[in-house]
Amino acid sequence: MFSYTVIGTGAVGGYYGSRLAESGKEVRFLARSDYDYIREKGLEVKSVHGDFILEDVSVYNNSSDIPVSDVLLVALKTTSNRSLVSLLKPLVRKDTIILILQNGLTMEDEVAQAFPDAVVIGGMCFICSQKSGPGRIDHMDFGSITMASFDNRGSDRLSILKDDFESSKIPITLAEDLGEARWRKLLWNIPYNGLSVVLDCDTRDIMTDLDSREIIRQLMVEVVAGARACGYTIEDEAIDKMLAYTDSMTPYEPSMKLDYNYKRSLEIEYMYRRPLDQASKNGVELPRIAMLASELAFIDRRNTAS
Amino acid sequence: MFSYTVIGTGAVGGYYGSRLAESGKEVRFLARSDYDYIREKGLEVKSVHGDFILEDVSVYNNSSDIPVSDVLLVALKTTSNRSLVSLLKPLVRKDTIILILQNGLTMEDEVAQAFPDAVVIGGMCFICSQKSGPGRIDHMDFGSITMASFDNRGSDRLSILKDDFESSKIPITLAEDLGEARWRKLLWNIPYNGLSVVLDCDTRDIMTDLDSREIIRQLMVEVVAGARACGYTIEDEAIDKMLAYTDSMTPYEPSMKLDYNYKRSLEIEYMYRRPLDQASKNGVELPRIAMLASELAFIDRRNTAS
Repeated sequence: MFSYTVIGTGAVGGYYGSRLAESGKEVRFLARSDYDYIREKGLEVKSVHGDFILEDVSVYNNSSDIPVSDVLLVALKTTSNRSLVSLLKPLVRKDTIILILQNGLTMEDEVAQAFPDAVVIGGMCFICSQKSGPGRIDHMDFGSITMASFDNRGSDRLSILKDDFESSKIPITLAEDLGEARWRKLLWNIPYNGLSVVLDCDTRDIMTDLDSREIIRQLMVEVVAGARACGYTIEDEAIDKMLAYTDSMTPYEPSMKLDYNYKRSLEIEYMYRRPLDQASKNGVELPRIAMLASELAFIDRRNTAS
Repeated sequence: MFSYTVIGTGAVGGYYGSRLAESGKEVRFLARSDYDYIREKGLEVKSVHGDFILEDVSVYNNSSDIPVSDVLLVALKTTSNRSLVSLLKPLVRKDTIILILQNGLTMEDEVAQAFPDAVVIGGMCFICSQKSGPGRIDHMDFGSITMASFDNRGSDRLSILKDDFESSKIPITLAEDLGEARWRKLLWNIPYNGLSVVLDCDTRDIMTDLDSREIIRQLMVEVVAGARACGYTIEDEAIDKMLAYTDSMTPYEPSMKLDYNYKRSLEIEYMYRRPLDQASKNGVELPRIAMLASELAFIDRRNTAS
C-alpha cells in the first residue's frame, strides 16, 4: 500500500484522493482556494457509487509543507503546468512515483525530464465529475482509470497502484503503451471537448445534428492519422465504436466546456497543440484539428478577458 | 438605356435599384414585407454617396403583375433560390437579361438552365449596406459591382449595363471570366462570412487575433486551391493583398453575420457547399472550408429554430 499526495483537489484529484482516503490509504491533499474550508469541514463526495464525507483531511496549501509520500497524484489542469515542476520539486525523492492524471500529450515527457530519478506513470481518467462547491465533489458517472508507465521503471509499481485503487472503488485498466493510450484518449477528447465549446453545446446536441456529428467523425479520422504518424496503431473501427458509445452516454458537457462555462482557461496547449506538433514532426498535418485549436484559442482569449 | 425589375428590395437590390431610378431609369421593384410601406411612402436611401428619397416607386408584391423589363436584377439572398425560377418565370422573355447579384457559386448555371433563351450575367457586389427599416436602406461604404457574362451572348449587353450603372453613381468593373470572378469574390466571402458567425465577431476582432487571422489565411489558401482545381488561376499574392486590404477596412460585420444577428437563414449552400462540391468534383478536398460549413449548418439550425 502506497501513501499519496494529491496535487490539485478538484473534480478529478478530489474524487480519487477522497476514495483512496476513504478506504484507509494515507492521503495528503494540496489545495488552493478551498484550503481553509477543507481544513475546517473536510471533503464531501456525492457519488453514483455512494456518498461519503471525509471529516479529518490532511490538507496543505503549500507543497513544501507536505510530508514525503510514495505517490504524487497530479490532478491539476494542464493550464497550470508552467508551475508544475516547481510545485513538485519539494515532494520528489528518488523513486517517487508521479502519477499524471491529466488530459493531453507530452506531460509525462516534461515531468520525466525534470525529475529523472522519479518514476513517471500516466493515467487516463474516464470520469464525469465536477467540483460543485468548496470541498465538495459531485461524481456523476464512470470513474475508471487506464494507467501506463512512461518507461519500464514504472512497470512493477503498476500492480500495487492497481490494488490500491481497486480496493478504493476505482476500476483500473493497465495499458502496455502510454503513447498509444494517450492517443486513444485523444480520440474522444479532441473532437468533443473542442466542438462543445465552439458550438456551445453538449454531447447530445452534437450527436443528433448530422453536420456536427460529421465534424466529430472527421476530427476522429485526423486523430487516428496523427496517432499513426507517431507510430501508434488505432484501428479504424475505433471511430464507429466511439461514436456509438457517445450516442449511448447520458448527455454530457466535456471538461473543456465546463471550463468555458466557468470562464477558466482552456487546455488547448496539451490537448491540441502538442498532438498537432507531434504529428507535424512526423510529417502529417491535421487541418481540422488545427482550425479547431485556433478557434478555441480565439474563444479562450475572449472568454477569460471578460 | 435598359428598363429594370429589381427582384428583392433589400440591402443590395434596394440600394442599386434606387440609384438606377434616381438617375432616371425605369425601375420596378418586387417587394414582400415592405410592399405596403414602399407603395405609400417610397424608398429612402441614406448613403455615403448622398442621401435621397424616391417618393413615387413602381412597387409590386407579385412578380406576375410586373411589366416586362429588359433587365431582371436578382438581389434575393440565395437562401430563397429554391423559388427563384418560379418567381422569374412570368418576367422572362427571349433575350431578357438576368443579372444575378448574389454571393456564391453556380447560381448562374441554374438560372441559365431554367431559361435557355435569357441572357445571364453575374454581378459581384462590393458594398456595405443594410436595410435599416421598412423602405429604408443604409449604405455605409463602397458600392462597386464586377460584372461578367455567363456565356458570350451577354458580352455586348455589358457595355450598356456599365453605362446605365455608372451614370447612376455605381462603379462597374467588367471581368472576362465569370467563374474566376466568382472564385475571387469567394476569397473574401468564404473566410470572413463564416468565421465571423462561428466566432460571433467582426472583421477587426478576427484580424487583430493571431489565431483567427491564421484561420482566415488558411481558408484563403483553400479557396485558391479550389479555384485552381476548377481551372481558374488566383495568384498567391492575392491572399496577402486581401488580408492587408481587410486590415485597412472599417471594422465590419459581413452579410452572413448580419443574417445571423437577425436570425435569418445563412447562405451556406451557395457560398460553401457549391464551391466544396465543385472542388471535390475536380479531385480537391478543402477540409477547413468543409468544417466551417458544417459548423455554420449547426449554428444556423439552432439560430433559426429559436
